[in-house]
Amino acid sequence: MNLPERVRIVEVGPRDGLQNEGRIVPLQEKVGFIDGLRSAGLSEIEASSFVHPKVIPQLADACDLFGELSHDQGVLYSALVPNERGLDRALECGVKRIAVFTAVSETFTSRNIRMSVDESLATFAPLVKRAVASGLTVRGYLSVCFVCPYEGDIAPEAVRPLAERLLEMGCDEVGVSDTIGAAGPREIAGTVSHLLERIPVERIALHLHDTYGTALANVLAGLELGVTSYDAAAGGLGGCPYAPGAAGNLATEDLVYMLDRCGIETGVDLEKVVAAGAAMAEFLGRVPSSRQWIRLGEADRD
Amino acid sequence: MNLPERVRIVEVGPRDGLQNEGRIVPLQEKVGFIDGLRSAGLSEIEASSFVHPKVIPQLADACDLFGELSHDQGVLYSALVPNERGLDRALECGVKRIAVFTAVSETFTSRNIRMSVDESLATFAPLVKRAVASGLTVRGYLSVCFVCPYEGDIAPEAVRPLAERLLEMGCDEVGVSDTIGAAGPREIAGTVSHLLERIPVERIALHLHDTYGTALANVLAGLELGVTSYDAAAGGLGGCPYAPGAAGNLATEDLVYMLDRCGIETGVDLEKVVAAGAAMAEFLGRVPSSRQWIRLGEADRD
Repeated sequence: MNLPERVRIVEVGPRDGLQNEGRIVPLQEKVGFIDGLRSAGLSEIEASSFVHPKVIPQLADACDLFGELSHDQGVLYSALVPNERGLDRALECGVKRIAVFTAVSETFTSRNIRMSVDESLATFAPLVKRAVASGLTVRGYLSVCFVCPYEGDIAPEAVRPLAERLLEMGCDEVGVSDTIGAAGPREIAGTVSHLLERIPVERIALHLHDTYGTALANVLAGLELGVTSYDAAAGGLGGCPYAPGAAGNLATEDLVYMLDRCGIETGVDLEKVVAAGAAMAEFLGRVPSSRQWIRLGEADRD
Repeated sequence: MNLPERVRIVEVGPRDGLQNEGRIVPLQEKVGFIDGLRSAGLSEIEASSFVHPKVIPQLADACDLFGELSHDQGVLYSALVPNERGLDRALECGVKRIAVFTAVSETFTSRNIRMSVDESLATFAPLVKRAVASGLTVRGYLSVCFVCPYEGDIAPEAVRPLAERLLEMGCDEVGVSDTIGAAGPREIAGTVSHLLERIPVERIALHLHDTYGTALANVLAGLELGVTSYDAAAGGLGGCPYAPGAAGNLATEDLVYMLDRCGIETGVDLEKVVAAGAAMAEFLGRVPSSRQWIRLGEADRD
């Protein structure tokens, strides 16, 4: 089994994990959560989003949050940016890395950001250019790359041109997303292989949700193709468990466990991630969805 | 991705799923559970065990159960047999397929069946011979093939000679087991590859537990090596969730979901398996541990 020696984990819990939570998490709780993630060894953390505060009230404190984070510890904090005004705010707050986002399916894009896919790319092109000119780096998220809740299965041929356009406009990687966590490993392998015919593997990050339990098998499919970047959220936070199609992210600790067992370095401490995710989940009144939490929690209770 | 076209699922819920449950399940509940599994398309079901009733009171009704099952529907029911007396009982009840069991680790074997590994093989050799002479077929389970809760990591070299001995004595397949569900896919691939140097792939079945969430990734590792037989338990039943090292089996419905998404035939209806597992879990006062139950349950509640 030919797998990479090291994997880069992008922790998206503070953003993707919290954005759909109805209960507003106070700034200091977020700072504590992010500190816990940093202490666990996570060196890239998507901390918030500069969307309009009315759209996602949970992340309205993005600027204050960036002011509170420890920026001298070798950790790269990033944030979503949906438009020029968001980029203005990100720049004012000293953000060094941003992410823009569109999707493969027209229906999803329309419902999610009220634009066509082409309109979204036209919106992001000058934004990415300005961000890069300002010294930022930019990720491009591509949602529903495998299965769309409205349009069903997505062909690899639909994904690649959009991924290429994101890279051409200045993004340094594409977050190839199984947004609803419905894909299986054969689909991951099929689409990623198709991407790799034109796109260097370093430009691909897999953003997986674990709705149907296939996320780690999907990671394995990615690893076997040489993909070394994976998103995850401590505690499996994310989405609303009662909204079909919006289940939690792949839990960081589940990812770390499997990579540890495969002898793949991550630099992340499993138990510290479990603790960070569990603390935030407790604050939210949730139970972490990760298998590691279940097992380590039991051990603690013994 | 080169995967098999069809996979055989051996449903072990009625035996491995129930054997550690403290609450005794009445015979008719078991019959109903097994009928539900059969209706879902599961054509091999490990129904019970002919261990001494005092050892596993839950399965003391094995003979009555076999008398109640529908034997004319093309379904093969099997049972564990630990000794000659158990084989006598199995033969009396008209059982057509049995399973014997030992383990790779001496400590585990000693604690589980109070014999050394060699003693267990010496015990089983004449038993398997008599079973085969009586027209039965026999599976040989090999526990802790990857990680032992007492001895830690297990080398592939320790597994193969025991698997070969089980086959040599007349077993038609070896249930290569990750008994505590701790292995990752690289270990599965390593050990299975080593086995395949001497053992035909048709003789290998993977028996996986999902303690740390890696079971489906481990299935993928098996599929990529051509393994077509997988054990699973509806509802992820099995073990005591509060006993470290004894978590639930890979949930049949999670396995079926992934195989469905990979275009691999199983003959099993996903929703019917979820229903069968959920009904038994409800009887036991448990929540099914499968991801499919969580998702389909939500859809039903909408």
